[in-house]
Amino acid sequence: MVKQIKQSNLRIIPLGGLGEVGRNMTLFEYQGKILIVDMGFRMPEEDMPGVDYIIPNIAYLKGREKDVVGIVFTHGHYDHIGAIPYLLYRFPFQNYPFFASRLTRAIILKRQGDFPAQPKLDIEEVKDGSRIDLPPFRVEFVKQNHNIADNFGLLIRTPVGNIFHTSDFKFDQNPVYDLPTDFKKLKELGQQKILLLMSDSTGAEEDGHSLSEKEIFENLEKLFLEPKGRIIAVTFGSLINRIQQLVALSEKYGRKVAVDGYTMRTNVELCKNLGYIKARKWTFISPKEMQNYPDEKITFLCTGAQGEAEAILMRIANREYPYLKLKKADTVIFSSSVVPGNERTVQILKDELYRQKAKVFQYKMMDIHAGGHGQRKELEEIIKLLQPKFFLPIHGQYSMLVAHAELAKEVGIPEKNVVVAESGQIVNLNRGKIQLEHEVVPSNYVMVDGLGIGDVGEVVLRDRQMLAEDGMFVIVAVVDRQTGKVRSSPDIISRGFVYLRESKELLRDTRKRVIGIVNKTTGSGGAVNWVYVKNEIRDKIGEFLYHKTQRRPMILPVVIEI
Amino acid sequence: MVKQIKQSNLRIIPLGGLGEVGRNMTLFEYQGKILIVDMGFRMPEEDMPGVDYIIPNIAYLKGREKDVVGIVFTHGHYDHIGAIPYLLYRFPFQNYPFFASRLTRAIILKRQGDFPAQPKLDIEEVKDGSRIDLPPFRVEFVKQNHNIADNFGLLIRTPVGNIFHTSDFKFDQNPVYDLPTDFKKLKELGQQKILLLMSDSTGAEEDGHSLSEKEIFENLEKLFLEPKGRIIAVTFGSLINRIQQLVALSEKYGRKVAVDGYTMRTNVELCKNLGYIKARKWTFISPKEMQNYPDEKITFLCTGAQGEAEAILMRIANREYPYLKLKKADTVIFSSSVVPGNERTVQILKDELYRQKAKVFQYKMMDIHAGGHGQRKELEEIIKLLQPKFFLPIHGQYSMLVAHAELAKEVGIPEKNVVVAESGQIVNLNRGKIQLEHEVVPSNYVMVDGLGIGDVGEVVLRDRQMLAEDGMFVIVAVVDRQTGKVRSSPDIISRGFVYLRESKELLRDTRKRVIGIVNKTTGSGGAVNWVYVKNEIRDKIGEFLYHKTQRRPMILPVVIEI
Repeated sequence: MVKQIKQSNLRIIPLGGLGEVGRNMTLFEYQGKILIVDMGFRMPEEDMPGVDYIIPNIAYLKGREKDVVGIVFTHGHYDHIGAIPYLLYRFPFQNYPFFASRLTRAIILKRQGDFPAQPKLDIEEVKDGSRIDLPPFRVEFVKQNHNIADNFGLLIRTPVGNIFHTSDFKFDQNPVYDLPTDFKKLKELGQQKILLLMSDSTGAEEDGHSLSEKEIFENLEKLFLEPKGRIIAVTFGSLINRIQQLVALSEKYGRKVAVDGYTMRTNVELCKNLGYIKARKWTFISPKEMQNYPDEKITFLCTGAQGEAEAILMRIANREYPYLKLKKADTVIFSSSVVPGNERTVQILKDELYRQKAKVFQYKMMDIHAGGHGQRKELEEIIKLLQPKFFLPIHGQYSMLVAHAELAKEVGIPEKNVVVAESGQIVNLNRGKIQLEHEVVPSNYVMVDGLGIGDVGEVVLRDRQMLAEDGMFVIVAVVDRQTGKVRSSPDIISRGFVYLRESKELLRDTRKRVIGIVNKTTGSGGAVNWVYVKNEIRDKIGEFLYHKTQRRPMILPVVIEI
Repeated sequence: MVKQIKQSNLRIIPLGGLGEVGRNMTLFEYQGKILIVDMGFRMPEEDMPGVDYIIPNIAYLKGREKDVVGIVFTHGHYDHIGAIPYLLYRFPFQNYPFFASRLTRAIILKRQGDFPAQPKLDIEEVKDGSRIDLPPFRVEFVKQNHNIADNFGLLIRTPVGNIFHTSDFKFDQNPVYDLPTDFKKLKELGQQKILLLMSDSTGAEEDGHSLSEKEIFENLEKLFLEPKGRIIAVTFGSLINRIQQLVALSEKYGRKVAVDGYTMRTNVELCKNLGYIKARKWTFISPKEMQNYPDEKITFLCTGAQGEAEAILMRIANREYPYLKLKKADTVIFSSSVVPGNERTVQILKDELYRQKAKVFQYKMMDIHAGGHGQRKELEEIIKLLQPKFFLPIHGQYSMLVAHAELAKEVGIPEKNVVVAESGQIVNLNRGKIQLEHEVVPSNYVMVDGLGIGDVGEVVLRDRQMLAEDGMFVIVAVVDRQTGKVRSSPDIISRGFVYLRESKELLRDTRKRVIGIVNKTTGSGGAVNWVYVKNEIRDKIGEFLYHKTQRRPMILPVVIEI
């Protein structure tokens, strides 16, 4: 099948971000030349203990060093740039031109500071309207509203036609500290014949229009009117625009601003220096300086809205943060949503704040947060503005891609012109047709754990899950080579299984059984099959422990011959 | 402080369920006599791997065998009855009278069938309006709507005054297969002077009124009108009323009903036998028989709405369920909410159903599910109907208790008459005053894991978490007692840390270091401090592995002297 498709077609290969949230990275390939858009990571699932991030699988690029024409970034969020340092270990991306907005560039370079051994990146700054030639592609950067400044949609001109990639986006006619969406510009783009629209699906299951940042600002302001105590505001460290709003409100109501939490502090510092956060010279104080001001003159911005164990807000809740102990008059504002999967930890955190009598406000109680993603109204609107021939939903869980595809059909794009693809699939496109190729490229997870990239795989994860479930049980038997008998009592080391001190009888019985198994299986010494001996210990002791406890610890027999 | 409070006061001691969801069990103590209400369990948190359930801590009852006057159950959900078999191991509850509705009784006895070694329970059946004397208490059972039949609020007459315990409840003027809320009866109760209202807080953060089951029924019916394929309906196995609705709709639209999933099957069987699920004789078929009917004649009811790995729906999604393979025309209805913390697994499940082209409907898309708990309107209403002097919010996370307490104050109960208590606290009550005692009773978690009850504690859990995070690393060194030198190369057993086959160099370096550490710390043999040797291995190898991998596996050194 694939062979029949003409070489003159364009191939779009999402290495991540389709059928999942995060890890955005897409290849555009035409006659062997490859343009790369974004290099993001995503967070691990609950069943991936110990894993820091998941990054795109770039096996497809192996040996294609001469074919890459350039790398383009839409914006500075980690799900679009976070994989850079890890992927640099696996492919010489430093040899290609990077293109990014001023803020995105600064965030990427700042991050590279954490990887001092890596080669220097040369990133060319682009602006709204910038055009770059990366033959056979030409890329034009188009400002899109999101919740970070300098976010660009991409108009990619290719030999088969024009493609518009929305980046993450929402429409906002009343943003705060940002320009409103330029609908005229989008309409003009629509008149230039868009062959394919690749559009952000994150909000495709949400009805209506996303909240304007102006509404959020006004609601946040209500919370600044009354409090006699401190305002403790938590939001995502990457939500620069919201941080700016909170800083501005603090200035308006005569509050100093202290900031803590690594990402928050780093981002605020960087954005202040570049002018993306505007503040008066004396607004910011250090957390330690808070003690020098009355409570009602203080706003404290910090991380931890997801209930992360190590973040500042959790330390405050646990009474472990040195610069702030909660008081009854304090107000805690969660200007953030709960990332799916974090509901329980956020609830536990919130309960603890209530126990300490603080007033707590969050997005379910009033509109003090909006995501950065357009909802169905906006998704409909951008299709109407751009009038693409073909439609490919990007960014999101599979159910979101499906919902977005259905919406595109409702708006009038014929069913055959809409394709739902997942990471690793190949979208084949020419002027007349869009279709999925039958072949796929590798897109399985590459996991980052500490310094290891890709060395934690299925086996290691399965072991971790098993260890977590019922712990482990190591049996060390020293066996006399001559007689085949166990010398002294076997050692048992167990963790996460039962409380050993209260299980002496169980351990005694287990030792007896181990001795019996070894003595029986080794016979009278001689040529002993030690693998068999170990398997017998594993199976028989496993059964015995399960019978006694209904638990299945991982059993690891060690037989030492002497 | 406590001593000063007169013996003539009543003590209410929630052993669970306040400041948490589930594990409901409350003691009412007057002059040494104790009435018990409910004995439920709750599900573990995410940081409790391997734990099956959490049950109430009943240390307070120790030595109080002669004081218990009886045990009363509100309804048949496991968060109210699930701890019975586990608590029977710890206290001779079988020696006291149990009181429960017909359905609750049947569910308790059915469950006891899984614990054949336990003593027989003698449970007296009670009905709406039943009164039982358990001096000094008198309990009257008052029908309350919920999402299981035979749910009773309790009017507890005590020497200090009347207490009304709502049980889980909602108001429903149009329930399906159930009687509407009897507001007249509640109003009459209000005229009998209610000293204290203990009211369900689960819905206290939700505005408005809960959906009527009638609306849900009508919405579900819409989904039965069109499908040409099978209807696969998933809900909680304990949601008997919803199951009845789905059975009735299936009959109306000429569909046979097959049921699978342990709790669902058991409950349907039991409820059919008792008449709590009404169905025609030929409505139910076995899952295997589905193949004998056209798709549009089939409803399949199953478990797995929370994305549980072993449940039927997940097996269908994984194409592992023998009696049903999804087709494009099939409709999957989630008539259920997502339990907080399960969002990710449900999303992954849903995505898989979409991939297999099924149509999926869930409560966020249309009103096809309601919880069994009244929301703010109803909570307000019951306070107004009963006009209690004092108010104690029960059942729910701390934030819900706080929200409920605030609501009670808004409705007019004076602040000093409202108490927010948590599990383990003691509410002290007389005609004129309600207050928390300073002392608390033990209420820490008792965890059930397999056959073990309470043997998994903090230490075991912390080990499991650590094992899950970075795995483990066992080092077995055989040391010559004479020379103090390591004999041959140390054994290393590691799981969940790195992929060993690809880490040969790391293992070689580690072995070398272990030999070095042992040889150095044992000196020239003689009186060796083996604890010190092991600590040195643990610390030094820990540092080394962290330096190389940025991971901290649990390091377990075993030194064998020969």
